[in-house]
Amino acid sequence: MSSSDIFIGETIGTAILILLGAGVVAAVTLKHSKARDAGWLAITFGWGFAVLTGAYLAGGVSGAHLNPAVTLGLAIQGGTEWGDVPLYLVSQLFGAMIGAVLVWAVYYGQFRAHLTDPEIVDLQPVDDGMVDQKAAPQAGPVLGVFSTGPEIRNAVQNVLTEVIATVVLVLAILTQGLNDAGNGLGTLGALITALVVVSIGLSLGGPTGYAINPVRDLGPRIVHALLPLPNKGGSDWGYAWVPVVGPLIGGALAGGLYNLAFA
Amino acid sequence: MSSSDIFIGETIGTAILILLGAGVVAAVTLKHSKARDAGWLAITFGWGFAVLTGAYLAGGVSGAHLNPAVTLGLAIQGGTEWGDVPLYLVSQLFGAMIGAVLVWAVYYGQFRAHLTDPEIVDLQPVDDGMVDQKAAPQAGPVLGVFSTGPEIRNAVQNVLTEVIATVVLVLAILTQGLNDAGNGLGTLGALITALVVVSIGLSLGGPTGYAINPVRDLGPRIVHALLPLPNKGGSDWGYAWVPVVGPLIGGALAGGLYNLAFA
Amino acid sequence: MSSSDIFIGETIGTAILILLGAGVVAAVTLKHSKARDAGWLAITFGWGFAVLTGAYLAGGVSGAHLNPAVTLGLAIQGGTEWGDVPLYLVSQLFGAMIGAVLVWAVYYGQFRAHLTDPEIVDLQPVDDGMVDQKAAPQAGPVLGVFSTGPEIRNAVQNVLTEVIATVVLVLAILTQGLNDAGNGLGTLGALITALVVVSIGLSLGGPTGYAINPVRDLGPRIVHALLPLPNKGGSDWGYAWVPVVGPLIGGALAGGLYNLAFA
Amino acid sequence: MSSSDIFIGETIGTAILILLGAGVVAAVTLKHSKARDAGWLAITFGWGFAVLTGAYLAGGVSGAHLNPAVTLGLAIQGGTEWGDVPLYLVSQLFGAMIGAVLVWAVYYGQFRAHLTDPEIVDLQPVDDGMVDQKAAPQAGPVLGVFSTGPEIRNAVQNVLTEVIATVVLVLAILTQGLNDAGNGLGTLGALITALVVVSIGLSLGGPTGYAINPVRDLGPRIVHALLPLPNKGGSDWGYAWVPVVGPLIGGALAGGLYNLAFA
Repeated sequence: MSSSDIFIGETIGTAILILLGAGVVAAVTLKHSKARDAGWLAITFGWGFAVLTGAYLAGGVSGAHLNPAVTLGLAIQGGTEWGDVPLYLVSQLFGAMIGAVLVWAVYYGQFRAHLTDPEIVDLQPVDDGMVDQKAAPQAGPVLGVFSTGPEIRNAVQNVLTEVIATVVLVLAILTQGLNDAGNGLGTLGALITALVVVSIGLSLGGPTGYAINPVRDLGPRIVHALLPLPNKGGSDWGYAWVPVVGPLIGGALAGGLYNLAFA
Repeated sequence: MSSSDIFIGETIGTAILILLGAGVVAAVTLKHSKARDAGWLAITFGWGFAVLTGAYLAGGVSGAHLNPAVTLGLAIQGGTEWGDVPLYLVSQLFGAMIGAVLVWAVYYGQFRAHLTDPEIVDLQPVDDGMVDQKAAPQAGPVLGVFSTGPEIRNAVQNVLTEVIATVVLVLAILTQGLNDAGNGLGTLGALITALVVVSIGLSLGGPTGYAINPVRDLGPRIVHALLPLPNKGGSDWGYAWVPVVGPLIGGALAGGLYNLAFA
Repeated sequence: MSSSDIFIGETIGTAILILLGAGVVAAVTLKHSKARDAGWLAITFGWGFAVLTGAYLAGGVSGAHLNPAVTLGLAIQGGTEWGDVPLYLVSQLFGAMIGAVLVWAVYYGQFRAHLTDPEIVDLQPVDDGMVDQKAAPQAGPVLGVFSTGPEIRNAVQNVLTEVIATVVLVLAILTQGLNDAGNGLGTLGALITALVVVSIGLSLGGPTGYAINPVRDLGPRIVHALLPLPNKGGSDWGYAWVPVVGPLIGGALAGGLYNLAFA
Repeated sequence: MSSSDIFIGETIGTAILILLGAGVVAAVTLKHSKARDAGWLAITFGWGFAVLTGAYLAGGVSGAHLNPAVTLGLAIQGGTEWGDVPLYLVSQLFGAMIGAVLVWAVYYGQFRAHLTDPEIVDLQPVDDGMVDQKAAPQAGPVLGVFSTGPEIRNAVQNVLTEVIATVVLVLAILTQGLNDAGNGLGTLGALITALVVVSIGLSLGGPTGYAINPVRDLGPRIVHALLPLPNKGGSDWGYAWVPVVGPLIGGALAGGLYNLAFA
């Protein structure tokens, strides 16, 4: 795979992933959106089909990792060369930031209307980096569109949840080869991966909002910090390491577990 | 592909698409429908599976574009001959109008009951072509069954939202060849496209109701203007150009982007 | 295909179809069910996946028509021999009745609790064969588990709705051959058909509850009439011809349309 | 298939199945979960996609039974050797227990917050092994995350419901060979099985919560009994035999029915 294929596929694919993934959260949570209050099922299917679309688009170009945890797991398994890893990661982070900016463009009027609504402005927490447990669920009225946050702020449990959820994701991707060997059913693989993501969201998303992907959380968080949104609140940098470290540990564990048990 | 194949496939396919797509909005919004208030998830899955059904039916006949933005993107990519484009477009518009008439037939009693309900008649806005922002979401109690309308009326944002959403759709269709090369998985392609449409609806449908297809909006809007429905309100022609121009720009951009990045 | 294959496949397949299809209505509507009030989306996915399960089970045995409208459409198209039609129909009706009895067994306690609940008993309409329009939606507190009924009782619209919905279903099944030629993707065909049924339910199910299958309605209605349920109300025989005649007309039209346009 | 393949595949696969399956119930029912009150549709899709993920992961290793009823059905059909059955069962029970412990780890803070909430503690039933019918639906505020329980406690109906639901599941798995012969579409088979499980949940899950798998109920119930959760209530051992015996009878009946009707 050429460097330009990796760069193009991962950048476009991750941009689409975040556009559609962060987009569904905007759709369900912002005022003046037709999807307002469509609920958790809408969010989990929305993120799953975001993965489907991004993976389908980039699959034939870069293999569609779209996620440093997947890249790390594949490198450990041997499916990706270690030398390609840095380019994958940079492209993924770049794409994630582009995707977050696109969400802002698509929902521009909704963000403005939402953030200047008097009822909602009052919900703004102070940005002390590590807000207290009670205020956490409301950590910024629009930060949730960009990045994840825990319902109960407990570093050990939050990291553990992200580790376990990411092991499931990456293991499912690594075993794809076992199932499809020789049939070239890449398209079906993208569908299965998407439904595995829906599954993880429905079943393991309750405590932390399932980042399971470092750039999915970090890229949009950077964009949230940079965007000139009124009353946007803080970017909760005190939590930002959890959805980076947890998924990376999970991806590495999945790669190791695959080599031990499935190879 | 013969002219009669194009005409038959696109007319029947687009008619089914609109019958099922506009049908789900009728089902969820009209009084005396068993699906009343089934919510946004029902609408997005309904439109997605409408695409699946229409694409599946017409796939073997005309290639199932069912959408001028798709036809334009394919022509730019080289998958469709420019000489065939006018026939595709005319057939699509004709099919969309037939589909809208069929929705009216299926929900005839519901339309009548809904439009003569005293509570609902009072919600009727005046038809000044460009209603003010506040009234916009209620623009005609049944116009929403036929055509899209924005939650916040802002031409720049509305066009931009339709452009971005259509780029995602058309790019997914154009890359299908990369994924399925030689496997003849046309059926699976229709399923993936349908789920991409669910994804776009869930994630990018909040601001404008995601036309992402010029005839999906224009055909039913013409039928709305012609149908002898009591108290039906105006057809909001002031907005009608947005869901035509936005998707066409998006289709063209996707074709160009494909040639630059994926070809 | 041998006669015993047709009999076994259609009987078991249709029994499973009705067990799961009528089952989801029982699950969502009866008291003391965990799925109570799960909503229209649950019902439409439930019926769609009922078709998937029945079609998947019987597909390799009898071709899995499970529906006289499908058998009629296939006979007109030429995919099924006319001489086999009577056996298909008898087996389907027999299977549908078995399925309805199984639903009664699975939800035995729920039926009893529901039907002896004082609040619900009061909703019982008289069984005059053709109840008035206002009472129609509540036509029997448990008849809706077994058979369909219209929201607005209007023979012309009700038949038309069933005709149009059935044309979509049967046309999708008939064109399957065009899409899958030579790939042997029977399994994928069952999935697509199931999602088409979800689509029809979401989009065209609002007025009549989408029988789109004569035995799906008639078989369970006979069982409803025979079962010794307390306070069960009438079986609304005045409406029973609509979901038989409408789907048969639709199946025939689809077969003819296929021969004209697609063959 | 080697013994270590069976052990590894069934243990990991069943652990993932229960992690995701019991996980979705935790997500929807526990306080301080983002998925709280997401509803029955979320639970049924969550369990279905849990099967998908577990089956996909273990499919290429052990064949992914993940369920003693499936193993029994396959042994009767001839697809699995009787000598392998004990190892399958032990691995499945072991995996189910691991999965339940993982759910506890992922939702640790939610369990604690939920179980120490004064409002919820008051709902605790006494653990008399066979609680009376009225109290049954609230049998332990968190036991429902681990194991199933009936809405109406009636041994005959409860067993019958589990038998019928399991026949549908196992029959669908046994006929897979008929549909996919020679195409190697194992991946698609996993998807179909998952959707059949969604179907069973939606349609037949109302009375008992559809165990349809002895270890899915017994493994987590043992873990519930052992875990040091405050105010956790009893483990309802009086009901524990139903979701073991019912599914085993169902699996055996499906195997026999397959040999009679489909072989």
